[in-house]
Amino acid sequence: MKEGKDRTEISTLGEFGLIDHLTENLPEPNASTIKGVGDDAAILDFNNGKRTLVTTDLLMEGVHFNLAYCPLKHLGYKAAVVNFSDIYAMNGTPKQITVSLAFSKKFALEDVEELYAGIRIACEQYGVDIIGGDTSASLTGLAISITCIGEADPNKVVCRNTAGSTDLICVSGDLGAAYMGLLFLERENQVYKKTGLAPDSDGEVFASKNYIIQRQLKPEARKDIIEALERINVVPTSMMDISDGLSSELLHICKQSNVGCRIYEDRLPIDYQTAVMAEEVNMNVSTVALHGGEDYELLFTVPLETNDVFQNLKGIKVIGHTTKPEMGCCLIGRDGQEHNIVAQGWNAFSGEDKKTDNNE
Amino acid sequence: MKEGKDRTEISTLGEFGLIDHLTENLPEPNASTIKGVGDDAAILDFNNGKRTLVTTDLLMEGVHFNLAYCPLKHLGYKAAVVNFSDIYAMNGTPKQITVSLAFSKKFALEDVEELYAGIRIACEQYGVDIIGGDTSASLTGLAISITCIGEADPNKVVCRNTAGSTDLICVSGDLGAAYMGLLFLERENQVYKKTGLAPDSDGEVFASKNYIIQRQLKPEARKDIIEALERINVVPTSMMDISDGLSSELLHICKQSNVGCRIYEDRLPIDYQTAVMAEEVNMNVSTVALHGGEDYELLFTVPLETNDVFQNLKGIKVIGHTTKPEMGCCLIGRDGQEHNIVAQGWNAFSGEDKKTDNNE
Repeated sequence: MKEGKDRTEISTLGEFGLIDHLTENLPEPNASTIKGVGDDAAILDFNNGKRTLVTTDLLMEGVHFNLAYCPLKHLGYKAAVVNFSDIYAMNGTPKQITVSLAFSKKFALEDVEELYAGIRIACEQYGVDIIGGDTSASLTGLAISITCIGEADPNKVVCRNTAGSTDLICVSGDLGAAYMGLLFLERENQVYKKTGLAPDSDGEVFASKNYIIQRQLKPEARKDIIEALERINVVPTSMMDISDGLSSELLHICKQSNVGCRIYEDRLPIDYQTAVMAEEVNMNVSTVALHGGEDYELLFTVPLETNDVFQNLKGIKVIGHTTKPEMGCCLIGRDGQEHNIVAQGWNAFSGEDKKTDNNE
Repeated sequence: MKEGKDRTEISTLGEFGLIDHLTENLPEPNASTIKGVGDDAAILDFNNGKRTLVTTDLLMEGVHFNLAYCPLKHLGYKAAVVNFSDIYAMNGTPKQITVSLAFSKKFALEDVEELYAGIRIACEQYGVDIIGGDTSASLTGLAISITCIGEADPNKVVCRNTAGSTDLICVSGDLGAAYMGLLFLERENQVYKKTGLAPDSDGEVFASKNYIIQRQLKPEARKDIIEALERINVVPTSMMDISDGLSSELLHICKQSNVGCRIYEDRLPIDYQTAVMAEEVNMNVSTVALHGGEDYELLFTVPLETNDVFQNLKGIKVIGHTTKPEMGCCLIGRDGQEHNIVAQGWNAFSGEDKKTDNNE
């Protein structure tokens, strides 16, 4: 490996910088490749009047999940669902996945069965076929790599770079819950490690945190929102799923679409349990909603004219609007003050979770 | 993780047993899924008069490669090419790949660039687009997961389970070289570790092993053979690529096609350097050709009537023929004796390399 003064740490670029760097100046693609790197999924055209979507995720033990509190069946379910979410985020339907798994000797066959059972349940739930994969040993820990293939109407595929400058900004569901679930589970795990007292997961404390735990361990992809958009016959002008945090995703859309945005703190959708947990850990709940990752909700923009529809659509919240790019990306606080939005989502390379910076 | 007497070790099933076990009784697939698990690639039908092929591979440091003697650029090249090989093995053409990488802190940006450069060179060489992927940290080592999408004519896709019982059995190129290259590199690495003397990789010893080293570190996929088959207008009755060893692959074809086979020891194609290295390490060279993995040559069956064509086709060797299943799977030795063929290829779970058993 490269050593000494010529060595550049990967973390200096961050995940998105690294991908941009590695894939810059790729040669002219095959005719069937419509869009490669840079969105939730790649877009292929197989001349069948449809678009084929491809997305992939690699989850590593100790980086993306902690088996001390993440049951293998839930993990399998989540690993599949996060890929489905990327396909829905393009306004498509997931159809097939390949599943590659590598496990170290600590895993028994029964453990692998549990993990795979979770993947199978997710696939049955969402109507997706397992079409192949690979299994291997690993020197340490578990690696899960899933690639998902989906389908979309060519006139309805939605990218990140097509928001207009006077669009409404909408999010589905509520934000920050998965992150609060993570902090809760981490806290219980620390207590367990220090005291040896196993958390009473059937008890009252867990019951009161049931929603945020569920959001962390067993998220769902918003198939229902894609279906609702289809029913009301609206194609968003841009869309992505919220995996790294609202702030990070919003900046992706604004940068790639060359627009600015104004979102309103008092319009951020937050569940009661998220608010309670934020208070317990002494965090600003808006910060949690803005930067907490892994919600797998949909963030999308729609034309201003659809305002009446979206203000009243169940499960959707209009949180702001896009602007000309020179206006920048701002959060309007409860006090009316403007704050620049800065991405503070998950960074798989820094090893630090900047979300706890609470400096919004 | 599962502990105690209820725990079943994964190695009891082996890789293929594990995949069969995990994917048994999958529900009825989507209409677009023609063939899922069980061949070199899955087959999808997107109603475009073509078949879409999907294959995936997960490579883990310390299990599939050793960075002590495997340069990162070569590794990237190989990681891509082994996926292309799976698509060619279906008589298709690779078109797109996704690339997911996880690296621990020992890797610098320059290392990742090297690895990715190798992947890009392979893609340019074979006309394949990089359309997406994922990058992540890893607690230990490097993980590479590549998924490849290819295309084939629906009338020309070739599976493993369609060999007839009176077909010729052919292989491309020569066998056992990649395995001998591995043993050579392992030996030099051991010497280096014990003596601290770096191998003189520009010197005479390496020059005399040049071919087998190349076969191990930078294999090619047999695009040329697929093109040759197209030119002579022959569609094999069955085909797969030789990644785990001829014996293992031949048994796959025979089992899935419900046929037997007779192959002839004196017809196994073996390079001179392979034979020399086998002698140096005191192994039977036929055993090496039969069980050595990672050659990425094509193994295929063709109708008996094409005998004249294939006996004279450059780069192809007819090594035997299929039989009725009750005849079993046999190697006819140089002395005319029959030996049952037993798979002794690479097993990613046992941690043992049975190929050195030399008991054929």
